[in-house]
Amino acid sequence: MLSLHSSSTARWLGQVDAHLDDVLVDHAHCEKKAAGVAMNLLFSYVDHVPLAHAMTEIVTEELDHFRQVLALLERRGIPFRKLSPSSYGPRLHELIRRQEPGRAVDRLLVAGLIEARSCERFALLRDHVADAELREFYGSLFESEARHHSTYVRLACDFAPTEAVHARLRELADAEAAIIDSGDPVARMHS
Amino acid sequence: MLSLHSSSTARWLGQVDAHLDDVLVDHAHCEKKAAGVAMNLLFSYVDHVPLAHAMTEIVTEELDHFRQVLALLERRGIPFRKLSPSSYGPRLHELIRRQEPGRAVDRLLVAGLIEARSCERFALLRDHVADAELREFYGSLFESEARHHSTYVRLACDFAPTEAVHARLRELADAEAAIIDSGDPVARMHS
Repeated sequence: MLSLHSSSTARWLGQVDAHLDDVLVDHAHCEKKAAGVAMNLLFSYVDHVPLAHAMTEIVTEELDHFRQVLALLERRGIPFRKLSPSSYGPRLHELIRRQEPGRAVDRLLVAGLIEARSCERFALLRDHVADAELREFYGSLFESEARHHSTYVRLACDFAPTEAVHARLRELADAEAAIIDSGDPVARMHS
Repeated sequence: MLSLHSSSTARWLGQVDAHLDDVLVDHAHCEKKAAGVAMNLLFSYVDHVPLAHAMTEIVTEELDHFRQVLALLERRGIPFRKLSPSSYGPRLHELIRRQEPGRAVDRLLVAGLIEARSCERFALLRDHVADAELREFYGSLFESEARHHSTYVRLACDFAPTEAVHARLRELADAEAAIIDSGDPVARMHS
């Protein structure tokens, strides 16, 4: 699904059930970080006008999701707070090549894989959690994350031949699946 | 006006008349940088929920302006490109104190002063340039920049007593006026 090479398991859903408040707070941070990643790409490749347009849209949508999660936390009386992240993001970040244009390709593909994993997990949560408001919320986020995934992969093809981009996407998806499969002791959106 | 301690002069309007294309390209970069500043503040003080909400709004509005300037450049056949910035931003940045909570106060007030200066200059441009589309565009940006100025000053008062914030704002406004008065050899939004 969406370039992913593994499916999330019951282990993760168990973490969600045991620590739902932490997962919700982490979700807010993830939306903020997704906006930050798109903003950094905008700054790095600003003279690529189609990328600049696409990144402004993604930043705007992710910040809207961030606001929605903050509002949801407030309605539930869950204080929003700093929270140590899972190791997922930093481990993916290490895979990014240092030299351009490979660096641009990898930054876009890693961003796209994170969107894909979020998308997969929102679908799982929509069908798993008992709370009706949360089910509806996760269902509403699904579509935009899938769209962002496609946008990132399409933009990567502006920096390298399509075949090379898809080969690299398969490599990175293998690595992403291994990181997800290894799990994380803390309960997070990407643990 | 809006905490500023000086008014822009005919010198700057002369630079605009002589290098309007450069000023338009720089304007796009300024909107992008304004979004970046608000995003950085969101990341630094994310557990201050009113600040987090205000920053998501400012990022969204500045990116909308960025898109509008890109569209305007495209309609005019002016290629968007990287451009060396004026010294205004870096010189203001040097004034920010290193230690919290003074650092938060200064980051917010410097961001507020940049919004105020942009606001003052958009009003000047609205009344100065001959081009009807540009006059209308600058007029449309005026209100939001004034509002952002007020938001930044109000948020600074969450990090220090109001009287101390306003005393610091007067100090920074003096420094900002001196930077503007010293000018910049390149034609930019804040030269």
